[in-house]
Amino acid sequence: MKLGIAYYPEHETASQWPIDYKKLRDAGIKRIRIAEFAWAVMEPNEGEYHWDWLDHSISLAAEFGLEVVLCTPTACPPIWLVERYPEVLPVNKLGKTIGFGARQHRSYSSPKYVEYSLKIVTKLAERYGEHANVVAWQLDNEFGGETKYDYGDCSKQAFHTFLAEKYGTIEQLNQRWGTVFWSQQYQRFNQIPLPAPLNADVMMWHHPSLELEFARFSSHVLVKFAQQQTEILRQYIGDRPITTNAFMFAYGDNIDWTKMFAGLDVLGMDIYSDKPHEIAFYSDACRSLLNKPFWMLEYGAGTSQLKRDLQIVRDRGCSQFFLFKTKPFPWGQEQARGGMELLSITGEPSPNYGVIQEYAEKYENELELTEVKPARIGMYYHFDSSWVYQTSVSDRLHYPDYLVHTIYKSLYASAESIDIIYSPEQIKEHDLLIIPLQVLYNEELEDRLIEYVKAGGKLVATTDLFRKNEDNVYLTAVPKIFKELFKWHKNNFVTDSILERKPVYLTEETGNGQAWLVARDSTLEEWQNLLGIIQKS
Amino acid sequence: MKLGIAYYPEHETASQWPIDYKKLRDAGIKRIRIAEFAWAVMEPNEGEYHWDWLDHSISLAAEFGLEVVLCTPTACPPIWLVERYPEVLPVNKLGKTIGFGARQHRSYSSPKYVEYSLKIVTKLAERYGEHANVVAWQLDNEFGGETKYDYGDCSKQAFHTFLAEKYGTIEQLNQRWGTVFWSQQYQRFNQIPLPAPLNADVMMWHHPSLELEFARFSSHVLVKFAQQQTEILRQYIGDRPITTNAFMFAYGDNIDWTKMFAGLDVLGMDIYSDKPHEIAFYSDACRSLLNKPFWMLEYGAGTSQLKRDLQIVRDRGCSQFFLFKTKPFPWGQEQARGGMELLSITGEPSPNYGVIQEYAEKYENELELTEVKPARIGMYYHFDSSWVYQTSVSDRLHYPDYLVHTIYKSLYASAESIDIIYSPEQIKEHDLLIIPLQVLYNEELEDRLIEYVKAGGKLVATTDLFRKNEDNVYLTAVPKIFKELFKWHKNNFVTDSILERKPVYLTEETGNGQAWLVARDSTLEEWQNLLGIIQKS
Amino acid sequence: MKLGIAYYPEHETASQWPIDYKKLRDAGIKRIRIAEFAWAVMEPNEGEYHWDWLDHSISLAAEFGLEVVLCTPTACPPIWLVERYPEVLPVNKLGKTIGFGARQHRSYSSPKYVEYSLKIVTKLAERYGEHANVVAWQLDNEFGGETKYDYGDCSKQAFHTFLAEKYGTIEQLNQRWGTVFWSQQYQRFNQIPLPAPLNADVMMWHHPSLELEFARFSSHVLVKFAQQQTEILRQYIGDRPITTNAFMFAYGDNIDWTKMFAGLDVLGMDIYSDKPHEIAFYSDACRSLLNKPFWMLEYGAGTSQLKRDLQIVRDRGCSQFFLFKTKPFPWGQEQARGGMELLSITGEPSPNYGVIQEYAEKYENELELTEVKPARIGMYYHFDSSWVYQTSVSDRLHYPDYLVHTIYKSLYASAESIDIIYSPEQIKEHDLLIIPLQVLYNEELEDRLIEYVKAGGKLVATTDLFRKNEDNVYLTAVPKIFKELFKWHKNNFVTDSILERKPVYLTEETGNGQAWLVARDSTLEEWQNLLGIIQKS
Repeated sequence: MKLGIAYYPEHETASQWPIDYKKLRDAGIKRIRIAEFAWAVMEPNEGEYHWDWLDHSISLAAEFGLEVVLCTPTACPPIWLVERYPEVLPVNKLGKTIGFGARQHRSYSSPKYVEYSLKIVTKLAERYGEHANVVAWQLDNEFGGETKYDYGDCSKQAFHTFLAEKYGTIEQLNQRWGTVFWSQQYQRFNQIPLPAPLNADVMMWHHPSLELEFARFSSHVLVKFAQQQTEILRQYIGDRPITTNAFMFAYGDNIDWTKMFAGLDVLGMDIYSDKPHEIAFYSDACRSLLNKPFWMLEYGAGTSQLKRDLQIVRDRGCSQFFLFKTKPFPWGQEQARGGMELLSITGEPSPNYGVIQEYAEKYENELELTEVKPARIGMYYHFDSSWVYQTSVSDRLHYPDYLVHTIYKSLYASAESIDIIYSPEQIKEHDLLIIPLQVLYNEELEDRLIEYVKAGGKLVATTDLFRKNEDNVYLTAVPKIFKELFKWHKNNFVTDSILERKPVYLTEETGNGQAWLVARDSTLEEWQNLLGIIQKS
Repeated sequence: MKLGIAYYPEHETASQWPIDYKKLRDAGIKRIRIAEFAWAVMEPNEGEYHWDWLDHSISLAAEFGLEVVLCTPTACPPIWLVERYPEVLPVNKLGKTIGFGARQHRSYSSPKYVEYSLKIVTKLAERYGEHANVVAWQLDNEFGGETKYDYGDCSKQAFHTFLAEKYGTIEQLNQRWGTVFWSQQYQRFNQIPLPAPLNADVMMWHHPSLELEFARFSSHVLVKFAQQQTEILRQYIGDRPITTNAFMFAYGDNIDWTKMFAGLDVLGMDIYSDKPHEIAFYSDACRSLLNKPFWMLEYGAGTSQLKRDLQIVRDRGCSQFFLFKTKPFPWGQEQARGGMELLSITGEPSPNYGVIQEYAEKYENELELTEVKPARIGMYYHFDSSWVYQTSVSDRLHYPDYLVHTIYKSLYASAESIDIIYSPEQIKEHDLLIIPLQVLYNEELEDRLIEYVKAGGKLVATTDLFRKNEDNVYLTAVPKIFKELFKWHKNNFVTDSILERKPVYLTEETGNGQAWLVARDSTLEEWQNLLGIIQKS
Repeated sequence: MKLGIAYYPEHETASQWPIDYKKLRDAGIKRIRIAEFAWAVMEPNEGEYHWDWLDHSISLAAEFGLEVVLCTPTACPPIWLVERYPEVLPVNKLGKTIGFGARQHRSYSSPKYVEYSLKIVTKLAERYGEHANVVAWQLDNEFGGETKYDYGDCSKQAFHTFLAEKYGTIEQLNQRWGTVFWSQQYQRFNQIPLPAPLNADVMMWHHPSLELEFARFSSHVLVKFAQQQTEILRQYIGDRPITTNAFMFAYGDNIDWTKMFAGLDVLGMDIYSDKPHEIAFYSDACRSLLNKPFWMLEYGAGTSQLKRDLQIVRDRGCSQFFLFKTKPFPWGQEQARGGMELLSITGEPSPNYGVIQEYAEKYENELELTEVKPARIGMYYHFDSSWVYQTSVSDRLHYPDYLVHTIYKSLYASAESIDIIYSPEQIKEHDLLIIPLQVLYNEELEDRLIEYVKAGGKLVATTDLFRKNEDNVYLTAVPKIFKELFKWHKNNFVTDSILERKPVYLTEETGNGQAWLVARDSTLEEWQNLLGIIQKS
């Protein structure tokens, strides 16, 4: 596992660079990740480019043995762009424009924002695409970080186009969503509102089918923007890998990772956590998606357990590990909050400097990751099902928290690593497959699960399994998996028929395998007991 | 007590109707309540009416012995109306327009909303007014449900007219309200703001006289709209009864029921509660107002105590009882949340199907309600006093909660039913009359109370009795009732003179009766003890 | 200590004045404070002045031995001004205009508001400046009370001017603030946003240097407006004293008192508290600032400890004590909430009437304050450091609460009075000087503190001492005071090097004095113990 770190040459005078680079090199750092917020330094006025500082800092890094991961700076549009085209600013769900003055003040659906972003990406790619010391590229910074959903006019128009492409006719949409409820039938796509608060005196909420589609759309525009940047970079950078730094699901898993990383070369991620099971979960989730080693692009723990955490991520398939960051910022929104800096604000080595140095020495000859032991257990993760629960008012659950902090945590002590499964075709020969909160029905998935159990697998699902169709509408007939795997022949759903609450509702041996249906709201302790028993069975 | 249920023909294919109707009939259901949200199905485009579905579903119902209560669909204006006249949308107190996408998105003060509403009501009345199977009419659905107060321009203009009619001159208003405080004098009625938040950095609030008038106005516009619909229906429906489904006071008792039901034939109400004393209170409140049997138009309890609750409402004067609803909705905002459906989402009988069936068989020969035992106790309910407390910032109390969950509850176990008294002229020969939180002074009421006690009645009031005049201004002299009933001759109000806190401040025998003045904030236990002692005395 | 009270002649008929004045005189009241909310009575329409009521009420007061403190009425602009120039209304941080309907609906940065305010002040000064019975003047009422920060256009323009005057060039501002962070560089002052919420989906906040400057600006505009009023009054009122009634820091200490009172003659204040240590703190803070007796302009305690509180403020330098208020208001926002009224709403003497009367008799011959005992202890209070903490998101502390309710309270039982020190030049020969939460560095202050300890003083600072420069940017080098007073020679800040938490980090004897560095978050008990030990040492 190779060590890297975030560095900000634009924050320093040029004379400071060699001083800092030397300290990084001496700690065992091999790569620096730079420039993700430097648009206004690169292009301080429209069309006026300043590259000297970047040329110099990249070349100088090479002299200290520091390879560069170069980031596109699109997360921070400069004041001149915002001033000339206020439409680049997104609007939040309360109808308030997200203003200039921090970061991520950009509407992914704004044609002008996209146009100017792709222009600076092109300029950057032209200049540094073949630079010998630029070894990889990161797109943007934490796509969808502070701005996940845009309720402005650009977004509304793009959403209408998205719906028209998906549903074809408004009659189809009315039919599938069930807008007959409360006279909500639309006559044209452009009448459909964005699901911003309805502002009623008594709590009132939007149509659940609208909510789910808007969540899908909001992921879609991020993915599309990443693809557009990627297409440009590919023209200039040869076979250098492209990644981006995805964020944890603490504020919602609003991007469908399977779509975001389908077009990228490496899965990259930022982790800020002091919980070992959480760090392990994301490591497993990162490795599993592309089924290959991943990069930790920002690591900044709250605790001082760096040594422990280096081991957790390495064991689960991390091949490059970037600390965030070299030293505390004296000014700005993230000023001197402390964390995982290598150096103090006065430039002195911090306690973690030694930890890094020690690690670097120990693994000097193993910079490339060797193999991760195959996992015996799989856990299904489905973004759309998660969004069903996160957008629901009457039946809200925090899907990511439940999967990470209840189910995954219940297995953490006993399992070395777990494969995260994102799609039916990824289902393979695990001993045990857990598919929690899979509320959305999918025929291919149903077939694969039946097949998996009949072939001898152990399957654990929760009681909400396959209650809704892909339009977020409840099924009115019981899917076949209940008959096939659970011998459930009634014409009611399990939870509509059995009223008593217990962790396990149904369990059946089927073919060579076995299947369990578990209460959706089982606790950590209940999962621990249950999965312990299942694994021994 | 006749049984009914909400049914939504527009949600189903026509082939489903006979299947569902048969199940309803077999359960003992005699009436269906339909069409309250079906405006967009009746009139999918402006002026284009679709009646076939309604013709057919009403006629078919007759074949299954199901009479129809037909609802006016004005609670859900269709998208075409909202798009053509955005002014039909109300504005909430934060200045945000209440958008299309749910229900109740209508300003009762918008001339266009009223015009189009009365037009669809007229069309409906013309077509079904004399239909043999349409036996009663319901206006709208839960007037003022999700939209209780409107802070938009239409509302503002209507409020100014309301004030001008009431006060005559702006000098009168300034004088009565005391706008000299903080230089708030107005020069013209159209300068008066609606009492939306003032948005100051430190909590600041509106003039209390303005707040009370706006509460009165907000009730007034609902009542007026109901009257307008009623006038139209009367022209077409012969002597069929008209009602509307009032809601509980959980979100505020924002409609003056005495005014709303003055022009209607039956008091109708929706109850969603699992508390027996609460169900009993509303049943008493419904029966007392028009002094005759009432209809439960939506009953949908959280618990499965249907059998118990049928008895509670029947004993207190309910003559028609409509469940909400036939089966769970697969889509839309109220999708599959479970409750009191007769059928499950797959169409199977739910546990309550049997309860209904059993009840229907037992009372087959007693569909018409017989007499309710006369109540020995009366409790005064005054909407204006309630609004004084609900709009107050410095002295806020939840009047309805206190009356229902403290005072009424303290009597529930021991009393069969209680009369709710809404106006001075309703005061009659009860053994005991409780008049809690009657903060607003009224001379006729004062005279009646004195008379009642002198004639031998027991009276219990709270310490805030008659502190303010009808303009929400504190009295500066002590009203005569304190002398007459409590022998209180000081020139201070009781609570300004006596500092120690105790449940009972003053008690006096006067003439043949007796009067108590009780601490305004006495607890449930204190009321139980006190009323126990009083009833035995 | 002379007794006074708030009276509102405009609230009464003229026939009521002699009745009330007599009751005030008989209680021992010598002064009335009038007219602070009476603009609309003085000028009911633009340019139309009504003075008769004021002439008469002031003259009549003289007949009852009641001197008048006359207030400028600028806190309540009348409806005609607001209607004609809506720009006089401020805008809150959510972008909502602060409406007419209460008080303090004025933007101090609005040229029209200032123009009309100075006009009514001029009229008032012309008419009453030399009136024999008008003995002092109060500016406005609680400047910045309900409206502390204005995010409207007038304010934005004024802020840009303020910044341009302070920083000279935009390059200077970019450099000093560190706007290079996240590409926040500005090209012109008028691009700088006001620090209203950014409205992002995930918590995001403004640049801390911007926040601090906006806090300074918001104090500046209040001070400037007070100066403008003062300049006018000086032309008409001879040597009568001018004051204003500053409010407690309960909602933030948003005005720099040192600047506000630099141009006034007396420090005046309003206290609403039932905590003796809090009343004592503000009394000390008032006396210390101008180093002379102060006036309590509104006293309205929640408790009935008036006798105790009269003693507390008298012992700490209060020379005039005004109760708030004569009797409860029947109408308006502050209707009948009870408190410290002399009379009840029916006009009867309240329990406190006797307390006042007794006090007045006891001190009849000592109306002028004699000397306050010199304090042995000083505590530093720095508005800018307070604002750093109050505007911080990642490191927020409530500076005023900590100083008042932790540090001052820990000393209250044992100290007779404490001097509050506001600036380096006020540091003098106390036995003990406490300088808590002094996060902002200032070279003169550093020199004075070193000098104070070397000269034999005891100094207690907290661990955040001198961490930031005046631009709210962290220092990157350790200031000399740590070497000089604490023998701290490392190149790290104390708290970056020592990880264990304890109340006292460092203590050193230096020259004849001694210095302590105490944990910033020490509790009340820890301060009590520590300061007890220090005082005995």
